[in-house]
Amino acid sequence: MSKLDKVVLAYSGGLDTSIILKWIKNNYGCDVVCMTADLGQGEEMDGIEEKALATGAVKAYVEDLREEFVRDYVFPMFRANALYEGRYLLGTAIARPLISKRMVEIAEIEGAQAVAHGATGKGNDQVRFELATMALNPRLKTIAPWREWDLKSRTDLINYAQENAIPVPVSRAKPWSIDANLLHTSFEGGELEDPWNAPGPDCYRNITPPEKCPDAPEEITIDFEAGDPIAVNSVKYSPAALLAKLNELGGRHGIGRVDMVENRFVGMKSRGVYETPGGTVLAMARRDLEGLTLDREVMHLRDSLVPRYAEMVYYGYWFSPEREALQAMIDKTQERVTGTVRLKLYKGNCVPLGRKSPFSLYNADLATFEEDVIYDQADAAGFIKLVGLRLKGRMQQSKWGGKDQEESCE
Amino acid sequence: MSKLDKVVLAYSGGLDTSIILKWIKNNYGCDVVCMTADLGQGEEMDGIEEKALATGAVKAYVEDLREEFVRDYVFPMFRANALYEGRYLLGTAIARPLISKRMVEIAEIEGAQAVAHGATGKGNDQVRFELATMALNPRLKTIAPWREWDLKSRTDLINYAQENAIPVPVSRAKPWSIDANLLHTSFEGGELEDPWNAPGPDCYRNITPPEKCPDAPEEITIDFEAGDPIAVNSVKYSPAALLAKLNELGGRHGIGRVDMVENRFVGMKSRGVYETPGGTVLAMARRDLEGLTLDREVMHLRDSLVPRYAEMVYYGYWFSPEREALQAMIDKTQERVTGTVRLKLYKGNCVPLGRKSPFSLYNADLATFEEDVIYDQADAAGFIKLVGLRLKGRMQQSKWGGKDQEESCE
Amino acid sequence: MSKLDKVVLAYSGGLDTSIILKWIKNNYGCDVVCMTADLGQGEEMDGIEEKALATGAVKAYVEDLREEFVRDYVFPMFRANALYEGRYLLGTAIARPLISKRMVEIAEIEGAQAVAHGATGKGNDQVRFELATMALNPRLKTIAPWREWDLKSRTDLINYAQENAIPVPVSRAKPWSIDANLLHTSFEGGELEDPWNAPGPDCYRNITPPEKCPDAPEEITIDFEAGDPIAVNSVKYSPAALLAKLNELGGRHGIGRVDMVENRFVGMKSRGVYETPGGTVLAMARRDLEGLTLDREVMHLRDSLVPRYAEMVYYGYWFSPEREALQAMIDKTQERVTGTVRLKLYKGNCVPLGRKSPFSLYNADLATFEEDVIYDQADAAGFIKLVGLRLKGRMQQSKWGGKDQEESCE
Amino acid sequence: MSKLDKVVLAYSGGLDTSIILKWIKNNYGCDVVCMTADLGQGEEMDGIEEKALATGAVKAYVEDLREEFVRDYVFPMFRANALYEGRYLLGTAIARPLISKRMVEIAEIEGAQAVAHGATGKGNDQVRFELATMALNPRLKTIAPWREWDLKSRTDLINYAQENAIPVPVSRAKPWSIDANLLHTSFEGGELEDPWNAPGPDCYRNITPPEKCPDAPEEITIDFEAGDPIAVNSVKYSPAALLAKLNELGGRHGIGRVDMVENRFVGMKSRGVYETPGGTVLAMARRDLEGLTLDREVMHLRDSLVPRYAEMVYYGYWFSPEREALQAMIDKTQERVTGTVRLKLYKGNCVPLGRKSPFSLYNADLATFEEDVIYDQADAAGFIKLVGLRLKGRMQQSKWGGKDQEESCE
Repeated sequence: MSKLDKVVLAYSGGLDTSIILKWIKNNYGCDVVCMTADLGQGEEMDGIEEKALATGAVKAYVEDLREEFVRDYVFPMFRANALYEGRYLLGTAIARPLISKRMVEIAEIEGAQAVAHGATGKGNDQVRFELATMALNPRLKTIAPWREWDLKSRTDLINYAQENAIPVPVSRAKPWSIDANLLHTSFEGGELEDPWNAPGPDCYRNITPPEKCPDAPEEITIDFEAGDPIAVNSVKYSPAALLAKLNELGGRHGIGRVDMVENRFVGMKSRGVYETPGGTVLAMARRDLEGLTLDREVMHLRDSLVPRYAEMVYYGYWFSPEREALQAMIDKTQERVTGTVRLKLYKGNCVPLGRKSPFSLYNADLATFEEDVIYDQADAAGFIKLVGLRLKGRMQQSKWGGKDQEESCE
Repeated sequence: MSKLDKVVLAYSGGLDTSIILKWIKNNYGCDVVCMTADLGQGEEMDGIEEKALATGAVKAYVEDLREEFVRDYVFPMFRANALYEGRYLLGTAIARPLISKRMVEIAEIEGAQAVAHGATGKGNDQVRFELATMALNPRLKTIAPWREWDLKSRTDLINYAQENAIPVPVSRAKPWSIDANLLHTSFEGGELEDPWNAPGPDCYRNITPPEKCPDAPEEITIDFEAGDPIAVNSVKYSPAALLAKLNELGGRHGIGRVDMVENRFVGMKSRGVYETPGGTVLAMARRDLEGLTLDREVMHLRDSLVPRYAEMVYYGYWFSPEREALQAMIDKTQERVTGTVRLKLYKGNCVPLGRKSPFSLYNADLATFEEDVIYDQADAAGFIKLVGLRLKGRMQQSKWGGKDQEESCE
Repeated sequence: MSKLDKVVLAYSGGLDTSIILKWIKNNYGCDVVCMTADLGQGEEMDGIEEKALATGAVKAYVEDLREEFVRDYVFPMFRANALYEGRYLLGTAIARPLISKRMVEIAEIEGAQAVAHGATGKGNDQVRFELATMALNPRLKTIAPWREWDLKSRTDLINYAQENAIPVPVSRAKPWSIDANLLHTSFEGGELEDPWNAPGPDCYRNITPPEKCPDAPEEITIDFEAGDPIAVNSVKYSPAALLAKLNELGGRHGIGRVDMVENRFVGMKSRGVYETPGGTVLAMARRDLEGLTLDREVMHLRDSLVPRYAEMVYYGYWFSPEREALQAMIDKTQERVTGTVRLKLYKGNCVPLGRKSPFSLYNADLATFEEDVIYDQADAAGFIKLVGLRLKGRMQQSKWGGKDQEESCE
Repeated sequence: MSKLDKVVLAYSGGLDTSIILKWIKNNYGCDVVCMTADLGQGEEMDGIEEKALATGAVKAYVEDLREEFVRDYVFPMFRANALYEGRYLLGTAIARPLISKRMVEIAEIEGAQAVAHGATGKGNDQVRFELATMALNPRLKTIAPWREWDLKSRTDLINYAQENAIPVPVSRAKPWSIDANLLHTSFEGGELEDPWNAPGPDCYRNITPPEKCPDAPEEITIDFEAGDPIAVNSVKYSPAALLAKLNELGGRHGIGRVDMVENRFVGMKSRGVYETPGGTVLAMARRDLEGLTLDREVMHLRDSLVPRYAEMVYYGYWFSPEREALQAMIDKTQERVTGTVRLKLYKGNCVPLGRKSPFSLYNADLATFEEDVIYDQADAAGFIKLVGLRLKGRMQQSKWGGKDQEESCE
């Protein structure tokens, strides 16, 4: 391995990545460039640069990636109706590739030979960061201190911080680990590690518990164009602003919490609690509009591929030829998913009330119970005879002899 | 076509099937045997036999099929996590094969040459009834009066009834068409035909609107064995009784309404509103327990086949070799989906709070953020290198030359 | 139904479509415009126009569609590696949409209200013609005389011809029915209707029986660009000319016959014998080059969708949103399927001997058994531990207790 | 890690596993029990036990696993029509789980704490051996000397052998690496590492090159019962004897060679040449009989899962819940794949000539071009109208307005 001169570190400004910054300097004897991405996690970005420099970084980038995040990552993923294991809207998974992409770009600008992250050796995030890096620039090395160092406990970490003059916050340890961005907030670990335990009442961050939500329902509309939302209540928003607006609306009405045991890519199960207020409203509205505008076979084909697409995102294969190939199909399906959905938000419920589209495939004249001139009900008899023909043959194999079977077919 | 002597009719006792009864007698000049199935639709079965005979039937069967329905149709379908187009729990679709099966059995007992049903020529039910019949006894003919007669409007029907001395109820026409059984109630047609219209406040039958639900949440447990529910709040129930109990609980708390535009097998879109209170609670609890007990690859494989399975049920291919083959796989996956889920029911929300199982695949020692002795985080480095190896090759194809690529891999 | 003034008929010049021409005129009392497509079936096109006019057509189009056929239909389908039921290269199915498209265009030019075809009511071709027409111009009606008239036997047809002064060829009836174009020749019916019967020695048209092939093998190369063949033995050809060249080569060496029982879309099984000499060579070469240039996950994902894609083509859904969506994915996968394959042709065998590509993903340094510096074999240990981790948990559920299991994991 | 007292080694008697035997003794200081499996690889088993003991084993098992191999591994896999990347019949992959299973059983009998194998750190076999072991007994450790030792070259190995008194054969190094069993022989490495190189004329072991095959074709029959072959030319054989018979027949006629670049599970591509004479004949015959006996939807559903099933076997997930779940479906599909296929074998060609079955779903009366009484061609009109209805709606979205569309549907 050639010597490392410079490393780009994904830096949050918290205790862990501050320790990592120092540890890399101490251990590798190289310069550390910090990169902090604003993905809408709601944390203070002011002062991050100074803090990084004070902790020993040679340079610190603070990047506002919110619009790119929603436009180029969240929305394409939603076009696929992606849902991991039937419930998880992939809020953490979808953020990692963008962070890696920016780190790779900065490494190329800065002439760094490696990137570093603060993900542990047990989770999915390490894989997501590193697969993205391998895909975008296979010459870059990755440093993953949690897999390398011998700091084995919280106490070890705090000792290391104190020895290295890193300020340790006095706050009580949180009973779980949090990850947040514009799409979601996740809670893992601590008291949640027993899957029989219900999350405590303070395991809420962006969603009002249904019991405390407003008593009045709120009705909203969302306008879509080619599968992406463009307006809420007829007001147009940029992608990031739109998602923020839906977060506000969904969160106020208690919508979008999931509590589940899921399967990590590294082979173990873990338990997570997720808050995805805006994303949940968006997913429901999109699915509903698809009912009106997607062809049946397109929808069923796509639905059969959702688990595979979600797996790609969850595992960290965003920058992969298979995700891009599947995305080409997905995007093709969305060309006419254009229209308006109205929904009622109320104490955890997000209920579609109506939907309309200039590309509606719904034809009330066809579906009506009343007489019509378009559809000849007699056609159904021929249809049924032929779609069922092969089923008759099956009985022919057994108790009904060939001769009987023939007689029955007239 | 050989002459028909006797026909078995799926008879509800309502106006439509009474007219059909007469029409078959008049038109085909044959005997009509009526069959009324109790699937928990909540209608009065007393007096049905007398009514059928009074309307001209030579014989009338009234069959309590509730336990068979839930045990042999609803539960196997739920084992597959079946959901049509992401939302519909298939409440009507799953009832049709059983009704047909019983009609075929009665036709064989009675020596009838045909079965008859009251489904129109535009919907899915005609297909479901007839495919089941073709699969079970291809020698039986089906009579579908709605596709055959020249009664073109409500007025025609009422005139026909009056001419044939069939009592016409004086009730106001419902603004929609209803189908009900132990699993669900569906609303279609009428004011729902405009997909932009929200269902009116009286389009509720078994579910309390969330706004009118109790203010106190209710916590329940459901016990499962090999994928099927066996107890609620630790009280064991038969399949039908258990589903009825969950209907009561879910309905009281406003759970299980769906409003969607869906794709019929006959090629058109239609709009339906469904109430599936107990089924929705059951599906949520099952999915949650699967999170704890199903292997990842088994779950992802199964999930990719759910759209296909749901399609089979929705289209009417219950008695088909493909459904049976897929069911064999599904049932194999469920052998260890055993355990208990606790859920909170509250104003439309059904939220899992915890889950446990003697076959849990969750290992808190593996998932913990704390130090452990089981899992060596260093293994993850090798894992990531190999699961990402093929991504590196891709860049090798483009800007990174072979030589560079090799250097980067040490 | 509004009155028909003018109909566009797919006209081959043979007895059947000549009778159909007359029958439409007699029966519908409308003008008939004939359209004959040259798809490389190897029949004489000279004189077709005169013959059509002599038989009563008001106008006759003779269209050379060979290049369009291969470029826009055959090649896109081959990009998908499409194979119906594992063996059939879809030679008839892929021709029908193009014929329909041209008929629809001519109907629009001519102001016709309908198109007509000579396919029977039992086969797939009627569906393919009519679905394409419905998709391209739903206002056009289709006339399918075989489903409409009362000519029930060969004798009826010949009588009808004689009554209408249509010349009847004196040739002995062929023992099967043939369809041909640049991609393939199919044989169906007659002596082939018994699936236990082997095809007779004269059931060959474009392929030399292996027993009569040259004793010397022939080695060829095919160059590909983005999934499509562009040159044979380093000589560039247009799409149609290239396929013709491969037909010549493959046919000479006995390559590309299939004899199978297949499932028609209309619900029955049929037996077909197919000759696809060039297509078979092409498919083998393409598949082989994909081995070198396609990413593993892309290939496996695509392979799982081949049966669905082939079904779409076989059933007649070429002009459908689902085929177009899937094609978008397929085409994306082929961007780097560029390179050269060399093959040996010999008495029915088409054997790849070697393959190379500027986009090769094969890295001999990685795959070698010899020592290398790129790949650290120790990584495999971590890889295996994590890809197998979930399998350990399974035993944990049964005979191995949790404690034991943990001990075993160090 | 607890100390190892005893290890079970997969021992072939060749140089490599002899060195491994010594190396484990030297390095781990533990007893080594050898296990040699006879899977029909055609090598001498006599004297293996003595050789193992002479090289330092405390005990040596020589196990004839041929019948178990074919009956419980090869045949179930063939029932699935498994084919990896469209061509590879998985001959090596399917042998590994059985070898591991026997090693695990012997380890339990002998009280060993580990198993050991001679697979390198770059291939698939290490994964297959170790996943099977992890699945069957997660408490067993695996020793993989190729990943552990510092013998980096052929010279190192030979030096080690000489230092440890292991006899080194004087034979010239083969230009490739071979693996063999009753199902196949594989060739990898050496001159094959350049994928543009054709295999040399001596890269044949069990298949006669087509150029040297008999000039007379040979016609054979194979009888099947529930998906498995039971007789050749009407003579019943045990599973292993039947496969040996087909190997003899296929090999004599040059059938069953594949030359391909494939994707390994560990992330790289490799080039392999395979000889699978009997397996190729068997696969062709089975596929052909399925044409006659499998329902269309069952076949298409199964076909879409073949890539996934093949992946499971290739990657080493034979003993996994997902393979077992999928096998349950596969086996269900095969219940009526019973009958006889006759084939012609000739210079590399394996051509089905006819097929018959007591469970045939083929009905010549349905498929005939002649008049019949079973199938009403008019039914096809209704069928086509409804299967195409949704395609009309699509044009309704664009150039054809709603009104036009309706008019066109009468």
